[in-house]
Amino acid sequence: MTQFIASHTDGKICLVGAPYDSTTSYRPGARFSPAAIREASQSLETFSFQQLFDLEDCSFMDTGDLNLPFGDPRPALEEIETAVTELLEQNKLPFLIGGEHLTSLGAVKAIAKRNPSMKVIHLDAHADLREDYLGQKLSHATVMKRIADIVGIDSIRQYGVRSCTQDEYILGKDLRADPGQILSWAEGSPCYITCDLDILDPSVLPGTGTPEPGGISFQELTDALIELIGNLSVAGMDVVELAPHYDPSGVSSVVAAKIIRESLIALSKKKEQAVGN
Amino acid sequence: MTQFIASHTDGKICLVGAPYDSTTSYRPGARFSPAAIREASQSLETFSFQQLFDLEDCSFMDTGDLNLPFGDPRPALEEIETAVTELLEQNKLPFLIGGEHLTSLGAVKAIAKRNPSMKVIHLDAHADLREDYLGQKLSHATVMKRIADIVGIDSIRQYGVRSCTQDEYILGKDLRADPGQILSWAEGSPCYITCDLDILDPSVLPGTGTPEPGGISFQELTDALIELIGNLSVAGMDVVELAPHYDPSGVSSVVAAKIIRESLIALSKKKEQAVGN
Amino acid sequence: MTQFIASHTDGKICLVGAPYDSTTSYRPGARFSPAAIREASQSLETFSFQQLFDLEDCSFMDTGDLNLPFGDPRPALEEIETAVTELLEQNKLPFLIGGEHLTSLGAVKAIAKRNPSMKVIHLDAHADLREDYLGQKLSHATVMKRIADIVGIDSIRQYGVRSCTQDEYILGKDLRADPGQILSWAEGSPCYITCDLDILDPSVLPGTGTPEPGGISFQELTDALIELIGNLSVAGMDVVELAPHYDPSGVSSVVAAKIIRESLIALSKKKEQAVGN
Amino acid sequence: MTQFIASHTDGKICLVGAPYDSTTSYRPGARFSPAAIREASQSLETFSFQQLFDLEDCSFMDTGDLNLPFGDPRPALEEIETAVTELLEQNKLPFLIGGEHLTSLGAVKAIAKRNPSMKVIHLDAHADLREDYLGQKLSHATVMKRIADIVGIDSIRQYGVRSCTQDEYILGKDLRADPGQILSWAEGSPCYITCDLDILDPSVLPGTGTPEPGGISFQELTDALIELIGNLSVAGMDVVELAPHYDPSGVSSVVAAKIIRESLIALSKKKEQAVGN
Amino acid sequence: MTQFIASHTDGKICLVGAPYDSTTSYRPGARFSPAAIREASQSLETFSFQQLFDLEDCSFMDTGDLNLPFGDPRPALEEIETAVTELLEQNKLPFLIGGEHLTSLGAVKAIAKRNPSMKVIHLDAHADLREDYLGQKLSHATVMKRIADIVGIDSIRQYGVRSCTQDEYILGKDLRADPGQILSWAEGSPCYITCDLDILDPSVLPGTGTPEPGGISFQELTDALIELIGNLSVAGMDVVELAPHYDPSGVSSVVAAKIIRESLIALSKKKEQAVGN
Amino acid sequence: MTQFIASHTDGKICLVGAPYDSTTSYRPGARFSPAAIREASQSLETFSFQQLFDLEDCSFMDTGDLNLPFGDPRPALEEIETAVTELLEQNKLPFLIGGEHLTSLGAVKAIAKRNPSMKVIHLDAHADLREDYLGQKLSHATVMKRIADIVGIDSIRQYGVRSCTQDEYILGKDLRADPGQILSWAEGSPCYITCDLDILDPSVLPGTGTPEPGGISFQELTDALIELIGNLSVAGMDVVELAPHYDPSGVSSVVAAKIIRESLIALSKKKEQAVGN
Repeated sequence: MTQFIASHTDGKICLVGAPYDSTTSYRPGARFSPAAIREASQSLETFSFQQLFDLEDCSFMDTGDLNLPFGDPRPALEEIETAVTELLEQNKLPFLIGGEHLTSLGAVKAIAKRNPSMKVIHLDAHADLREDYLGQKLSHATVMKRIADIVGIDSIRQYGVRSCTQDEYILGKDLRADPGQILSWAEGSPCYITCDLDILDPSVLPGTGTPEPGGISFQELTDALIELIGNLSVAGMDVVELAPHYDPSGVSSVVAAKIIRESLIALSKKKEQAVGN
Repeated sequence: MTQFIASHTDGKICLVGAPYDSTTSYRPGARFSPAAIREASQSLETFSFQQLFDLEDCSFMDTGDLNLPFGDPRPALEEIETAVTELLEQNKLPFLIGGEHLTSLGAVKAIAKRNPSMKVIHLDAHADLREDYLGQKLSHATVMKRIADIVGIDSIRQYGVRSCTQDEYILGKDLRADPGQILSWAEGSPCYITCDLDILDPSVLPGTGTPEPGGISFQELTDALIELIGNLSVAGMDVVELAPHYDPSGVSSVVAAKIIRESLIALSKKKEQAVGN
Repeated sequence: MTQFIASHTDGKICLVGAPYDSTTSYRPGARFSPAAIREASQSLETFSFQQLFDLEDCSFMDTGDLNLPFGDPRPALEEIETAVTELLEQNKLPFLIGGEHLTSLGAVKAIAKRNPSMKVIHLDAHADLREDYLGQKLSHATVMKRIADIVGIDSIRQYGVRSCTQDEYILGKDLRADPGQILSWAEGSPCYITCDLDILDPSVLPGTGTPEPGGISFQELTDALIELIGNLSVAGMDVVELAPHYDPSGVSSVVAAKIIRESLIALSKKKEQAVGN
Repeated sequence: MTQFIASHTDGKICLVGAPYDSTTSYRPGARFSPAAIREASQSLETFSFQQLFDLEDCSFMDTGDLNLPFGDPRPALEEIETAVTELLEQNKLPFLIGGEHLTSLGAVKAIAKRNPSMKVIHLDAHADLREDYLGQKLSHATVMKRIADIVGIDSIRQYGVRSCTQDEYILGKDLRADPGQILSWAEGSPCYITCDLDILDPSVLPGTGTPEPGGISFQELTDALIELIGNLSVAGMDVVELAPHYDPSGVSSVVAAKIIRESLIALSKKKEQAVGN
Repeated sequence: MTQFIASHTDGKICLVGAPYDSTTSYRPGARFSPAAIREASQSLETFSFQQLFDLEDCSFMDTGDLNLPFGDPRPALEEIETAVTELLEQNKLPFLIGGEHLTSLGAVKAIAKRNPSMKVIHLDAHADLREDYLGQKLSHATVMKRIADIVGIDSIRQYGVRSCTQDEYILGKDLRADPGQILSWAEGSPCYITCDLDILDPSVLPGTGTPEPGGISFQELTDALIELIGNLSVAGMDVVELAPHYDPSGVSSVVAAKIIRESLIALSKKKEQAVGN
Repeated sequence: MTQFIASHTDGKICLVGAPYDSTTSYRPGARFSPAAIREASQSLETFSFQQLFDLEDCSFMDTGDLNLPFGDPRPALEEIETAVTELLEQNKLPFLIGGEHLTSLGAVKAIAKRNPSMKVIHLDAHADLREDYLGQKLSHATVMKRIADIVGIDSIRQYGVRSCTQDEYILGKDLRADPGQILSWAEGSPCYITCDLDILDPSVLPGTGTPEPGGISFQELTDALIELIGNLSVAGMDVVELAPHYDPSGVSSVVAAKIIRESLIALSKKKEQAVGN
């Protein structure tokens, strides 16, 4: 299909590239994700075989990449929060493309201000519930704890987690659920969906900073996303942690682009994307 | 096992390399497929664990690669058609190794002349049913439409398709079938099997021009091929669209070589490979 | 997690790197496996989500790599045998990290001397039961035949084999079993588990010398290992044939590291690892 | 620096991407060149240390990529010719980014119509003077012969050639010259400069379709281009044959981007870029 | 040779790994440099053909890597400063292995405190003299300006610079010098040598974050370092900005290891490495 | 040009592939060299621009690869010796394509028997004069010492050496010479030329097992070879130690193929290639 960026210059759902990865502890490179996803999107059709709907009939646009400084995450997070707040003021639905997982925090902050009862649905291989990492409070490994500080830990549910410390295991025990359970729990509330692509098995998406063997399949992830998006009030969403350089075959970027295509279509097929917007 | 090319210098089934990929629209490189498959074939045993039969007991040979000009596809297609026609005149069974999917058209043309009632079984992730692509009638994206122009669209069945335009979706609606349905439909007719390797999930075969997430497994593809070949009158066959450079692990080439080994054995185990030959 | 090598300097189970790959016939590089696994182990947590146990609570250590000469395998095998014998004398449980599969022979020799009734559980895509390979008795392709020369072929069971010659197929017919059958057969005897990582499907572990399409999944392998280790008297173990350079994504090394982590935890959770030690 | 494409939306010199590579005979992939050069341009400063001039002070723009069909080269060449003609009508200076070398033919055709006495300066490792290649008149290996058909072979000079057939060697004997000789010869005439990047030694630019060992250095090429551009009336120019996928280090794309930056600055520093425009 | 880390556990010169790269703006990955250099050091002899001296006869040790947090550079810089201060207190000569160029700042801070008249010799392709970068004062692109804030800009000389902004060009005009000029200027003063490996031409060292075509050769760099080290009072040194993942051939890491070997030998051959220690 | 193997089936000079690399101590893979060189030879013209002579007019053939067992080097060396002896008996000039450097030993043994006064010209980055390596007498690191055992160390001259141990430095002191000196020394004697491709700088040929920074250029090597071959009586020759997998750009294989092309042409241009044959 035509590149995301070229095909649509106005629309309800707004893709925002957040190419920041400075706190990544194992393998950096998620900064290259938005550009790689746009490039890979050219290899896909705009029509979804699964949803029988065409992306060309969706109301979305690509606002391009934020110009984020590297190093200290605070200025980058502030820029993300500002950009997302501006979109909300224009009654848009923000769809962040990371970057590392910490970038989600900027978006959640902005959206939670307008949706105090917001629930956060977390798809990931890792719990990301550490209180700090090597002394740092702001890290890809602590992002869900920081989000819990905002929305409350009971407003979070996790799907796909298969790696954590013993402490995180205990802390996150009641958060783990499958898509069906998450659906019942979140129905009626404004929701933020944060999708760390390492939830997929590394055979499906090797291009990520911290690959964790034993993950779910492409079909399981798209099924989950379509079901959740189709039945919930989505106030914002992100897809993070593609690190395209680690997959020289380019397949990881195509996988990410197709997941975003299916998400955009699922979001557009519904009348009202989100309460509170 | 020994390289295909070295091991057999005469036989009923004839491998023909067709290293042409000039109309590939996303990522070229299928031209390197025949050489990569021969090289990878060295890592495999000649004995099939699944079929309990040895390739050394099969009547096949490798005729090497055609010397195809790049650019305009017409001279290349003519050379393929001529080469396949010559094999048919020698009562051989042609087995094309692409090259891009458009190379199938040359083989189909030659075989359809001798088998006017031939049916075409199309294994692929993409429908390839466009009328033209960027104004070009001859393209990897239009090849099944061009084949339909020859054998009639009702003589085609498709398995594995998961990507197409809305128009192709409607046009191909009645063509999609699973291997069992194809078997009932094609029984008794001479058949051409064209296998675009991107039918496989990109985790299994990342080395292809247009990887499409969500595909079938290696076992599903070999099961389908063995079932179809074992029960139908195969007049010709091809395996296309391996682009080995995109998979630096070399696994994609091994996958392609094993699929060809299983196909050769399935073809050989039967008394009569094809009517009309 | 912290690197294996750094985290533990004393313990019951002893990791021994055996970076030898000179008889590899298709693609060498298993020599780089121990270093790659140590490096990749940093990306994993020490806590096992599947076994709910922390590697930090296990009694193991990394003794580093043996300094093996390349070329003629006999001196290398002798060094492995000597090193393993020394560990046994210290009442340690040897856990070899290959290198190519032939390295297992050195470990088996040492352990079988003390456990004459030892059974060998062989997880692999290939039967490795050739009598010789290109005239050589000592080869990665003959290693199980050489082990059979020591323990008797009836003391071997194979899981995962999907590639062999016709002769090996016949010779190995009664050896093939699934994990449940192996468990019943081996219960009560001291066991050696040799795990050639190419048992996994190449989509899961492309970084190996002789990838064989159609293998088992990561979950199937860890389930089998945890079940076998948890219920048998393991006298020694190895994980061989990772060739990390063929997988530029680095995922294969992470897969190998996670399999070793799960094996170490499974070995440690039991009171007595092995009879005869 | 900022990406070429983003930084300038109007200007005298117009970059035109021509992502076509269907006649490439050895290794395709020059189609990815314009996108890779734009991406790599971000890593460079806009200020030239050699020319002490800033690209930001130059009058240039990036018109993006032409949407060229693959396969038969004639429609692609026509689209290039049309696009270049339109630029000339707007009194712009066309600067083509290939694509394979055949793309130059479209630009030369358009410019030669307005500059019948135009001279063509050919920087390349290969003579490209074949009459045909595998029967095809239009090929990357015949492009200079086709250009000679338009401007006359005496209006061509070649620098850097180190590979050709015996016939091409004889035909091109009087065309070979160094930059100083070319300068004297071409002074006062409108010139077209076509720069095939494989003129560089493959150690400097491994990412090209037909690497030819023994080439010139980066400094020699930039010196030659700055000297030629600075002293001649350039009516058009191109930089072709970067195939970025073959250089996973990304350096080849940075080299190409820097050569284009230096060329743009050299073109801009002069009062009048070309006669006849 | 044996790995640096294994071969020496005590000595005058202390290698310190500083695997931090969070402010890298183009391509991260310098964090992997210390591990890659240690691994690559195994492929080199310990004897220097150029200096006719053996590393085994040098007084040096490898203190391993600092455990630096990613993200905000201040805690990482503090840890580097602390570690270097401790070495100075033990009368050691610190030799930092980056990480990105900003890591030099931590070392310079510690050493400048004890050597207020210290001169800094800067080998680099880039001037690194920006006042800030995207609003950040602490960045790989500002590091020499931050060092100038400490030692004074007149105490800096630069060799190899070929890329900068117009402002940096003017600011750095009097700093640029060749090794001979630097020698005369710095003789008698305690010196810190900071060597950004991108001073080398990218053909020699493609594995770096911001490759800049047109650099010096391996021989020119080792000649310069041996001359400078052999004739100056070196109080500290670093080698930074190897990003090994971008060079799959592994050559860049070998180049870095050899440069460090030659530097260690040059430092050891002299009686007194530094005044003020 | 056409592949070496296909183009000539009879001739005076005989290419012999020796795909053995089991004693390689750092990075194996030289076994893939003959296949990679044949494949890369397709990208080159048959005409030599430097020698103004066409390979098509040379009397040479490619005898294919020997089927060498891996592991213990003795059977492999015996097979090489036998094959070379057979060629000599047919009055052919053997031209070995390694494989690792130890393969030269088999060829030298065969040729030295017929040419007792033979001189050996050794082009290499490494001295290869160790008495043993990790206890092994037969190794790529000892090959020139083993050859010295046959022809006497005074019958060896070395060009390009820039890496060795202190012992090797002393032992090889009088052997090191430049091409001009070697020419005077060897004139009139039958000569064997052994060319380890790591003599080239790793920027020119990164694809080798033990890259050593600081080497000679492509032009220096071809000049040396053409001068030596053109003026000496060459009784045999080899080109060894290309390890193509480490250079994903493919350039190293093209460099090797061009060096072999120039050598074949230089050998053919002379009336009599060798005395004693």
